[in-house]
Amino acid sequence: MKFVIAPDSFKGSVSAKAAALSIARGIKKVLPDADTCLIPLGDGGEGTMDSLVAATNGTKVKVEVVGPLHRPVTAQYGILGDGVTCVIEMASASGLDLLLESERDPLLATTYGTGQLIKKALDDGCKKFILAIGGSATNDGGIGMLQALGMKLLDENGQEVGLGANQLSQIVTIDDQAFDPRIAKMEFLIASDVQNPLIGQNGASHVFGPQKGATPEMVQVLDTYLTKWADLVERKNGIRLHDKAGAGAAGGIGGAFQAFFPAKTQRGIDIVIEYTGLREQLSDAELVFTGEGQIDFQTASGKTPMGVAEAAKQEGIPVFVLAGSIGTGIEVLYEYGISAIHSIVNKPMTLTEAMEQGEELLELAAEQVVRVYLQGIKSS
Amino acid sequence: MKFVIAPDSFKGSVSAKAAALSIARGIKKVLPDADTCLIPLGDGGEGTMDSLVAATNGTKVKVEVVGPLHRPVTAQYGILGDGVTCVIEMASASGLDLLLESERDPLLATTYGTGQLIKKALDDGCKKFILAIGGSATNDGGIGMLQALGMKLLDENGQEVGLGANQLSQIVTIDDQAFDPRIAKMEFLIASDVQNPLIGQNGASHVFGPQKGATPEMVQVLDTYLTKWADLVERKNGIRLHDKAGAGAAGGIGGAFQAFFPAKTQRGIDIVIEYTGLREQLSDAELVFTGEGQIDFQTASGKTPMGVAEAAKQEGIPVFVLAGSIGTGIEVLYEYGISAIHSIVNKPMTLTEAMEQGEELLELAAEQVVRVYLQGIKSS
Repeated sequence: MKFVIAPDSFKGSVSAKAAALSIARGIKKVLPDADTCLIPLGDGGEGTMDSLVAATNGTKVKVEVVGPLHRPVTAQYGILGDGVTCVIEMASASGLDLLLESERDPLLATTYGTGQLIKKALDDGCKKFILAIGGSATNDGGIGMLQALGMKLLDENGQEVGLGANQLSQIVTIDDQAFDPRIAKMEFLIASDVQNPLIGQNGASHVFGPQKGATPEMVQVLDTYLTKWADLVERKNGIRLHDKAGAGAAGGIGGAFQAFFPAKTQRGIDIVIEYTGLREQLSDAELVFTGEGQIDFQTASGKTPMGVAEAAKQEGIPVFVLAGSIGTGIEVLYEYGISAIHSIVNKPMTLTEAMEQGEELLELAAEQVVRVYLQGIKSS
Repeated sequence: MKFVIAPDSFKGSVSAKAAALSIARGIKKVLPDADTCLIPLGDGGEGTMDSLVAATNGTKVKVEVVGPLHRPVTAQYGILGDGVTCVIEMASASGLDLLLESERDPLLATTYGTGQLIKKALDDGCKKFILAIGGSATNDGGIGMLQALGMKLLDENGQEVGLGANQLSQIVTIDDQAFDPRIAKMEFLIASDVQNPLIGQNGASHVFGPQKGATPEMVQVLDTYLTKWADLVERKNGIRLHDKAGAGAAGGIGGAFQAFFPAKTQRGIDIVIEYTGLREQLSDAELVFTGEGQIDFQTASGKTPMGVAEAAKQEGIPVFVLAGSIGTGIEVLYEYGISAIHSIVNKPMTLTEAMEQGEELLELAAEQVVRVYLQGIKSS
């Protein structure tokens, strides 16, 4: 009996890989000879690289790059098992998690490091680029990335501007003559669930600025700067990022990909499912376990259990979800192919206690679900 | 598809009946046409009367009796559907729950009210008596009950002694001439899991006295008094309660039944299972749900889920346990026929929160278990 085990991480408690191992232990307590296929997942955010590298027996490459606040940081990207596809988590080079909360500064933060990662992967011979752009500290419209890849952004004196969103207002000319020519020949897949446009009330600055440290005044400034940038881009190549869906993703780097890269955007979880080979593994499986820390009605919008359910539904196999916490409105999830949802919490306890015991609780919960499932099989 | 639903109460949160109703709602969310057979249970303690009366369509009778501290209390006993079997919870007339914690006084507390309940049931024509003797406030060796039924307990002046354990030391003669003659012709079934003897380190006073309010000094006194009483009983009819298993149950009333009644002791849960007709209902059921507030290795010693499992094992049907809290060592329970054990807690929460949401959580948990079970059926 083959079990596919494809959880996301339980944030703050158990990594996706550890969660998969725990669930496998629970299954084997009941069925010691079970065939367990572990595919730890991410939903296109944090963990995506680990997931794809692990599923394809790929490798990771460390690179020293310019961090969000211009200090050097050691970032990494992954090369998948095929040797030509790379996966880059923007957060690794330009992420909020690289900063102390008090350091957050979306006027200063740059995506330069992300551009350096792309350049390194190009140098390493990668042909296909998967970009997971969640968790960024930046609001620079992606100009840092462009700068790192040879785009010249000139001020009124013909001088190149510096790094960070506060340089956006200085730019009067976009000179792409030195922009890395290899880019046009590659394939860029942007993993993003964000549909926001670049500017305005639903734009990058208003919606995501505050969580990156922007005060209300800074939000106004950032939005004005990005508007000027969008005007420039429109004049340059006719693409209107102002109100383009997805242009506001990750502080506007989404727009930079749309305007200057041969890029296609897909839901993170769909990319992860495609590149981990989950669907193929499901085709001859008895059932699949998935899970994440919190499950509720929002899970329907592209979170990991949802993607797993959609894939499993096509194969007609049951999907059992294990969650740390079950919120409201889970009924909608059954329609998408989720068969049942169990909390791993096995008694009244605090969130901290649940997090500390995550692996053990996952094992116990998986064991009980398998016990019930086998009774169903036996009865018929 | 027939589901038997036979939970105990979730103490402090949900009655056995409300628990059964909640589980039924959960099942019907998945299978609206399911045949649900509700048999709320007790394990011979609190809830036993309600369970048996409900399962047999019996009735309840209210009686004013002498309470544990000699104040009147309104107690009740149940007459089962057959009209001749009654079920008496000693706690209803002589229970700890009738007192404030500060009032507890095992030297004063009497079982007189329990005797009055028996007398009333005799007067009502009952022939068969089920006595659930858990939760007593008393340590009087059952003399109050005997007094209520006509036993004359005389002091050295030939005067009848009063009520309570502190009268035990005055008794020099047991005169059973006026002891209710109907008792000898009836059947008494004592529901008790307690194996303790009447006296000594494992006796009623030492083991159960403290929880009834006895100080260490009182424990000594009570044990001395019960020793004197056991000597008297032995001289009277040759029965040695001193070290007889079960004589120490419920402050020694267990011994009084052994010495003066045609009584047989059985595990509470076995009596409940027999008289609720659970076994018959299981014979054509698909599976059974049971549960209680806390489940752990101790559940194996005669608690409700255990009794249900033993009965279900004979019928070869699955037993799914829902518990508020899952403790350690549950692995042993699988051998007894329990198929799987789920907590109803669906996220990190306090005990108080779990108790407040008991019904809702039970419904959700039952639903998920049925969902998994049905997937098992479908797959095979």
